[in-house]
Amino acid sequence: MWTLDGQGPLYQQVYRAARRAILSAELPPGTRFPSSRALAADLGVSRNTVILAYDQLLAEGYIATREGSGTFVATELPEDLTETIRTDRGERDSDAIFTPRLSAYGERLGDLDRGKELTWEQRGTPPRFDFRYGRPNLLDFPQDTWCRVLGRRARRASARQLDYGPPAGREELRSAVAEYLWRSRGVVCTPGQVVIVNGSQQALDLAARTLIDPGDRVVIEEPHYPGARLALEAAGAEVVPGALDADGLDVRALAGVGARLAYVTPAHQFPSGVSMPVQRRLDVLAWAEREGTLLFEDDYDSEFRYSARPVEALQGLDRSGRVLYAGTFSKLMFPALRLGYMVLPAALVRPITNAKATVDTGCPALEQLALADFIKEGHFDRHLRRSRTRNAKRREALLQALHQYLGDRAEVSGSNAGLHVLIWLRGFAARRLPALRRRAAEQGVAVYPVTPYFRTPPARAGLLLGFAALPESEIDEGIKRLSKLLAGPET
Amino acid sequence: MWTLDGQGPLYQQVYRAARRAILSAELPPGTRFPSSRALAADLGVSRNTVILAYDQLLAEGYIATREGSGTFVATELPEDLTETIRTDRGERDSDAIFTPRLSAYGERLGDLDRGKELTWEQRGTPPRFDFRYGRPNLLDFPQDTWCRVLGRRARRASARQLDYGPPAGREELRSAVAEYLWRSRGVVCTPGQVVIVNGSQQALDLAARTLIDPGDRVVIEEPHYPGARLALEAAGAEVVPGALDADGLDVRALAGVGARLAYVTPAHQFPSGVSMPVQRRLDVLAWAEREGTLLFEDDYDSEFRYSARPVEALQGLDRSGRVLYAGTFSKLMFPALRLGYMVLPAALVRPITNAKATVDTGCPALEQLALADFIKEGHFDRHLRRSRTRNAKRREALLQALHQYLGDRAEVSGSNAGLHVLIWLRGFAARRLPALRRRAAEQGVAVYPVTPYFRTPPARAGLLLGFAALPESEIDEGIKRLSKLLAGPET
Repeated sequence: MWTLDGQGPLYQQVYRAARRAILSAELPPGTRFPSSRALAADLGVSRNTVILAYDQLLAEGYIATREGSGTFVATELPEDLTETIRTDRGERDSDAIFTPRLSAYGERLGDLDRGKELTWEQRGTPPRFDFRYGRPNLLDFPQDTWCRVLGRRARRASARQLDYGPPAGREELRSAVAEYLWRSRGVVCTPGQVVIVNGSQQALDLAARTLIDPGDRVVIEEPHYPGARLALEAAGAEVVPGALDADGLDVRALAGVGARLAYVTPAHQFPSGVSMPVQRRLDVLAWAEREGTLLFEDDYDSEFRYSARPVEALQGLDRSGRVLYAGTFSKLMFPALRLGYMVLPAALVRPITNAKATVDTGCPALEQLALADFIKEGHFDRHLRRSRTRNAKRREALLQALHQYLGDRAEVSGSNAGLHVLIWLRGFAARRLPALRRRAAEQGVAVYPVTPYFRTPPARAGLLLGFAALPESEIDEGIKRLSKLLAGPET
Repeated sequence: MWTLDGQGPLYQQVYRAARRAILSAELPPGTRFPSSRALAADLGVSRNTVILAYDQLLAEGYIATREGSGTFVATELPEDLTETIRTDRGERDSDAIFTPRLSAYGERLGDLDRGKELTWEQRGTPPRFDFRYGRPNLLDFPQDTWCRVLGRRARRASARQLDYGPPAGREELRSAVAEYLWRSRGVVCTPGQVVIVNGSQQALDLAARTLIDPGDRVVIEEPHYPGARLALEAAGAEVVPGALDADGLDVRALAGVGARLAYVTPAHQFPSGVSMPVQRRLDVLAWAEREGTLLFEDDYDSEFRYSARPVEALQGLDRSGRVLYAGTFSKLMFPALRLGYMVLPAALVRPITNAKATVDTGCPALEQLALADFIKEGHFDRHLRRSRTRNAKRREALLQALHQYLGDRAEVSGSNAGLHVLIWLRGFAARRLPALRRRAAEQGVAVYPVTPYFRTPPARAGLLLGFAALPESEIDEGIKRLSKLLAGPET
């Protein structure tokens, strides 16, 4: 009679088959419904199974019993429903499909083609010599220790720890973060100013949403990290690009802009790698005070600094409560953890906590508690020291290979901090980069142009070289292969 | 000379002490800086420690060396910086504090006083007989099994699994969710229509943001779950309350409203507990088609259904792609997991995935993968069956106690599904509820008024009684104690 779909409990399969027969008008409204005994025999299932299915069809109003005369397909099913024939999952009548109108925010998101620009995900098999940037070497991460600490928290979690928690984050982690940021970055805050978020992208989004109205001006360093611009533009911000000089954002050109917010990466500008000296930091703060502008300080990778200790955060120099400081555990733990933090001026703690409560009620608890343990028990500092040493060696290998194989043909920038450097190729036009990348890929070498980070593509050919993911010998070999292509004939 | 703060590495302590002396003008610009030898002797630390601190002060521009004449406090430090005296963490000059202006969204959030209404967190010690609702009994959850599954994923996680992932969620979980929703709720979808989110609050927020512009009308059932209203009102929605009758949302009164979206809980209306029969579901869909309205179906706890199998989702009856279906794992796993899902009409998959990418790049990976395993290996279904049986017993105990101790004095509503019932007290005025709750609390009994879920507080006294958290004997004892208070003299 009917074909069962083989999914889940048998009586559910019978229920669905019967329902399909009703909805497709195979059994029109008012017709007699087969008896449970007949149906059981037909389908080769037990009568009890059929009765369970009948109960559900009755409860939902698909069938009805008339006293003394048996079971019938309900008559009050409207005609338009009986036209619904869905023989398979997901199949729809395409003529009837409703096209929803998006909000202004939804439209802006679409225009920005975020799907393309904001996918951090690695796709396909990475090449052997992959100079990808923006993530740590995940082999450095002490996964066993993390599993132990996380497992302990998960096993011992109390009912309250499994329940909803405070939207701003668990006290244990807020304290550990405040403590860590004070000793490592000179961030001056109490745990009450820390809000735990799902990585720095959420920090940006919460700030954009809570502080930016459509049409508001926002200064963004040029070039810059596109995730920041997109979150701000989606919120309706009018982006004013801020030029960089050798010391970072040049605020002299920005007098009178009247920006509501400026997005800055003083520790290690992305992608140029410039570190802002203290004098420039003070200039930026003074400019922000004159202009009535808030500063969003994105300190995404300054734990990795090679020539001196990390320069103290802008936040630590701020006297007037205008710096929103944000960082992430993606680079020091692993990106899939999705935990980061904001350190907020007192006046913004409540609005941003309310926003966090509204957007997702708060971050997962066990990971927060495990991360707090991981920091307090010293695993975090140990991992940081070890990976700093390893990354310093990788950086050294990269700089040496660039010197040896490319020499004067490459100008290296931004090597003091972070996990990538920027090189400008001398005597090599930017338009030749796509061909170079294709030929490099044939040699197993992946390099990444800096072009996407500029509003106006630079005439010079710039490449971002991430060095965290590769062993030193492969860094050397990769640059050697790249150099041969650069030495070759113009393509 | 200077006091070290005792935090972190010694050279960092020296660095901070020196910096403080410079910033407080104890050492004014241009003055000679103490020699490393003198400072080491003064502070009782090694000279190497002091030299490390000096290197950092030099790198950051706080001090400068003049050839042949030693080290000096930098002269180019602006005067206003030297006025910055911060002797302690978090201390700020309150006169200079900047008061940031919030966006319209930020202002609306503040007006809604979300901080008060949206804290799900349990505070203080719960009373012995706590009829709290809106969460499962966390003692039912097979924590050991979950730890094993999660631990396995965490230990074996590949570098790619620790990296950024697809914003809409891991394929493994999207498939497991599509499969589960098809067999348990009649949700008709492909894994490509599933977007994994941080619980149903994020589902609501993403929908509000992507679909609602300030001033747009949104129908919300009255009474309703305030988290939904707040997310929608914060997005600027003009909320149109939709009255309920015995079958749920009464759409006859809503003709011509022109709402962009309607928020509905057909499976188990919150807080009334009404389940919408299939005929009303079809009426709601037909109304939405006539009006050009999208439907947000929040299926927050319909796994727990006692009289028949769960009625199939509105989504499964939708022919025109206008239902956004959302659910959460908070009630079946645990709230602190922060994972839920949306099932979207094809036209909304891309906009909402883009929004998810922009707001936080995606959910944590290991929990997603572990949850997919947990479902595929049958632990989820087993847990669901077991906790459904347990909750059925608790519900039975509650209904019996209500019958035995309160009899006609209470009218019970919404007991067919979910983890709570609503009772209306007969012959007991709503204004007497606060006194009743105080006296109940003295007896160790916590009960919760339904009043906060109504825009216009009802004249009748209604209580929400969650039954998941208590053993049957305590449910009985709690209701017995409550009944004595109700029988007592008017207070």
